[in-house]
Amino acid sequence: MENLLRIFTVPEAPGSTLSRLENDISANLAGFLQEHIVAEETDLVEIERDFSDTLIPERPVYVSEQTEFLLDKVVAQSVHTASPSFVGHMTSALPYFMIPLSKIMIALNQNLVKTETSKAFTPLERQVLGMLHRLVYDEPESFYSQWLHDAHRHLGAFCSGGTVANITALWAARNRAFGPDGDFPGIMKAGMFAAMRHYGCEGTAVLVSERGHYSLAKAADVLGIGRDQIVAVETDGHNRIRPDALESTIRRLRRSNIRPFALVGVAGTTETGNIDPLDSLADIAAKERMHFHVDGAWGGPTLFSETYRKRLKGIERADSVTIDAHKQLYVPMGVGLVLFRDPAALKSIEHHAQYIIREGSKDLGSATLEGSRPGMAMLVHSALKIIGRRGYALLIDNGIGLARRFADRIEALDDFELVSDPELNIFTYRWLPPAARDALRDADPERCRQINEVLNRITRYIQKTQREHGKAFVSRTRLTPERYDRQLITVFRVVLANPLTTDEVLRDVIEEQREIAASMQDHEDIQRLNQLTRCPAA
Amino acid sequence: MENLLRIFTVPEAPGSTLSRLENDISANLAGFLQEHIVAEETDLVEIERDFSDTLIPERPVYVSEQTEFLLDKVVAQSVHTASPSFVGHMTSALPYFMIPLSKIMIALNQNLVKTETSKAFTPLERQVLGMLHRLVYDEPESFYSQWLHDAHRHLGAFCSGGTVANITALWAARNRAFGPDGDFPGIMKAGMFAAMRHYGCEGTAVLVSERGHYSLAKAADVLGIGRDQIVAVETDGHNRIRPDALESTIRRLRRSNIRPFALVGVAGTTETGNIDPLDSLADIAAKERMHFHVDGAWGGPTLFSETYRKRLKGIERADSVTIDAHKQLYVPMGVGLVLFRDPAALKSIEHHAQYIIREGSKDLGSATLEGSRPGMAMLVHSALKIIGRRGYALLIDNGIGLARRFADRIEALDDFELVSDPELNIFTYRWLPPAARDALRDADPERCRQINEVLNRITRYIQKTQREHGKAFVSRTRLTPERYDRQLITVFRVVLANPLTTDEVLRDVIEEQREIAASMQDHEDIQRLNQLTRCPAA
Repeated sequence: MENLLRIFTVPEAPGSTLSRLENDISANLAGFLQEHIVAEETDLVEIERDFSDTLIPERPVYVSEQTEFLLDKVVAQSVHTASPSFVGHMTSALPYFMIPLSKIMIALNQNLVKTETSKAFTPLERQVLGMLHRLVYDEPESFYSQWLHDAHRHLGAFCSGGTVANITALWAARNRAFGPDGDFPGIMKAGMFAAMRHYGCEGTAVLVSERGHYSLAKAADVLGIGRDQIVAVETDGHNRIRPDALESTIRRLRRSNIRPFALVGVAGTTETGNIDPLDSLADIAAKERMHFHVDGAWGGPTLFSETYRKRLKGIERADSVTIDAHKQLYVPMGVGLVLFRDPAALKSIEHHAQYIIREGSKDLGSATLEGSRPGMAMLVHSALKIIGRRGYALLIDNGIGLARRFADRIEALDDFELVSDPELNIFTYRWLPPAARDALRDADPERCRQINEVLNRITRYIQKTQREHGKAFVSRTRLTPERYDRQLITVFRVVLANPLTTDEVLRDVIEEQREIAASMQDHEDIQRLNQLTRCPAA
Repeated sequence: MENLLRIFTVPEAPGSTLSRLENDISANLAGFLQEHIVAEETDLVEIERDFSDTLIPERPVYVSEQTEFLLDKVVAQSVHTASPSFVGHMTSALPYFMIPLSKIMIALNQNLVKTETSKAFTPLERQVLGMLHRLVYDEPESFYSQWLHDAHRHLGAFCSGGTVANITALWAARNRAFGPDGDFPGIMKAGMFAAMRHYGCEGTAVLVSERGHYSLAKAADVLGIGRDQIVAVETDGHNRIRPDALESTIRRLRRSNIRPFALVGVAGTTETGNIDPLDSLADIAAKERMHFHVDGAWGGPTLFSETYRKRLKGIERADSVTIDAHKQLYVPMGVGLVLFRDPAALKSIEHHAQYIIREGSKDLGSATLEGSRPGMAMLVHSALKIIGRRGYALLIDNGIGLARRFADRIEALDDFELVSDPELNIFTYRWLPPAARDALRDADPERCRQINEVLNRITRYIQKTQREHGKAFVSRTRLTPERYDRQLITVFRVVLANPLTTDEVLRDVIEEQREIAASMQDHEDIQRLNQLTRCPAA
């Protein structure tokens, strides 16, 4: 027991085993992060061998032994998401000040569910919600001084990420749409079935473009709405929802007595980075009395940019907005938030208990989906202060500029095809040699379909091979472009949010993809492609 | 832009501004944590003044300036949850090795939603799920070697905490109970309303004792079941569900054509630390074909103790079990998990997307409620290794022993009353002077009710005053003990999970409460109490 007590006691500062270990960790991490290798070429199945023992050891292992294990087997085999050539996902470089500041959060181990375990962290979190609320809604100073710290109001809710933020928004919207009414105690108490019967509907629906994030279908499942009731509305050639298709969808639902209670606009689609026409959506939502939610998990911080914020015009009319802090606010993994224009909106999901989050307390836990939560707000606060409005503007402008130049270069190449044009800092493309390009222009639809199918396999092969080489990483997805009659097309997807990524890094990405394609000369898919493109009538 | 790039670049190790700052932070934190003061006596409203500006600064502030702000205004005004005299909530001391090891997690910034952004962290997380699955279910080695790393199976799901774990368990249970059937595509796709109609029920219900955690009502709201359909079953004198009451509740629900699809057993009630008779619950769940979930968010790790694990007998028959890692696994805030006995159980909530979590991938995100998630599993892994099975057993035994001794002492005092006896390391009590005790024994029911009401106000006053003094912290809640005809009684609640808490610390807690009571002589509630107890016929 005495040994055990020691691990809970503050170590004497310098020279202690723990501070030596910490120095080792810092040196090792600096080494890992300085190497610009995305990932070692080790098969996952091989790595799994080091993580196969399910017996919890009877006796303790030394901290130094565990540290060594982590550095050897985990750090060395993890993905260098901060590498300038890791341009495939939304996980980017982290400002280095986050590392020492995170220490404060970890060591204090506050629990934001209630003020009794978080004290100053509670007003701090509310302040951050206010700062981002103001970024989106720009209410007058008097609004914020009135509501920011009000025990009965919430400008939003912190959570672990965009998925929970989207669920929270739709949960609040659902509970408002089917709230208490006469004898009916509301859906919160009575549930979905009783609510449908009371309101005389055959079902509910949430409307979103076919490019909406998969978390929305998950939200519909969780919330008892049903995945099929996330009604995917057609997009135009730029992956943006078509307002005319939206309106006819609403008419169709109403005819079947299905009540669409929420409309989701996307500000930065995950796959292509496009932005729905938010102003038109706000008009339709107002006319149809639907909750208007904007999923700005990715694109929300574009509001910092004087140049590009106009692309989000209409977001200020949203009833709620999701922003992920661990994406373009450059905060460590595990924090997102949802803002509500109306500070009373979260009342529809408020809950209380006897021992905490009592009615009238300032406990943040009364209006969050999660219970116990860490003080990540401290890191968002620090990022907003240390990077500042102009800093974020530079980061946003830089990423969009980089994407524009990279897309232009791809468009100018005769062996690559730009599939979706960047509106923000995300776009998609694929390898498309001249012969295939010509064939796709001239061949009959069936032949085109076959060529694209082979190209899909080749794109997949190139992406996986490049990932395995470990020098660079782009992701891949499947889209249904109009130019190919909505056939499923596999594409490379790049996300350019790392300020360390340069034009040169991207040139190398393309060069490597070209080399992989060249190395495939004997591959059956290349042979099939040659066959299909060589002789149009074959 | 150049200044901005610098914050994303690995700083030259020693002597850099950032490493100097880090040393300052460490020194300051060590100072804060060594002082055994729970919280400074500052009013929240006063603290709020430092967090009232909602304007994001145009220009960046220096990291050093922000650090100073955090140390002055946040650290100094936060709650010392690791203090040995902070015995009121489930947030406890943190082993110090967590601080350097967390650095690895923060710096690598992995995203566990997919292997492409987490690689070795994926098998690591699966291993931790396997270790805890084995702790609960103790399946043979062959079971784990077959399923641990299987792309189509999950032994459980990590999440941010117990609330999401409980929601996940009930979500999976709901989707299994109302799954696809003939033409009906299942509740996941069709939603709650269609499911009720297809299965011909008037509603669904989840059964749990009246001492169940508030997150279950929240789960019922979120899942479209409705809070009123969390049917609270009566408990016995030890805050444990009464199987007879449960069976009659089920009969009543069935008569109304309500289908109870899940039964929740509590292993460590939040307010009193009691454990439901899990074996009897497992029998009833099997007979009634209900999903049997055990909420072991708090009490789960009692399984480490050879002495006390038998109190959880029957947990191994649960379909799912919630365990919070940031509670009695002593991991930093923000990680819980839910285990499923059947590795195929999470299929009922599985989801896929085009660009990640594709069918057949090993991406963990296909079976979690959350999307992007940090690599907290690394810290759970480290805790299990460094503390070891025996270390956890010692911690558990120590807390239960401490609670037993403290409860015995209170029982021996003539001015305090033990309200709920500790089964684990949590119990409740209140200040009850001899005259009031006598009166409660002898007076008529109405007089008793009045006395308890005044005592409730006094308990509340003592708890708040002690919290404000900042030397110690117990929480408070309200219970309905049988001995007072289920009248709501306000009590002090202690949670004894900090190994640094000693018998002496607890003696001081009581002493201070006694002093606060003594200082209340002129308080109207004490005068009212004296009046009510002095003259039985007044």
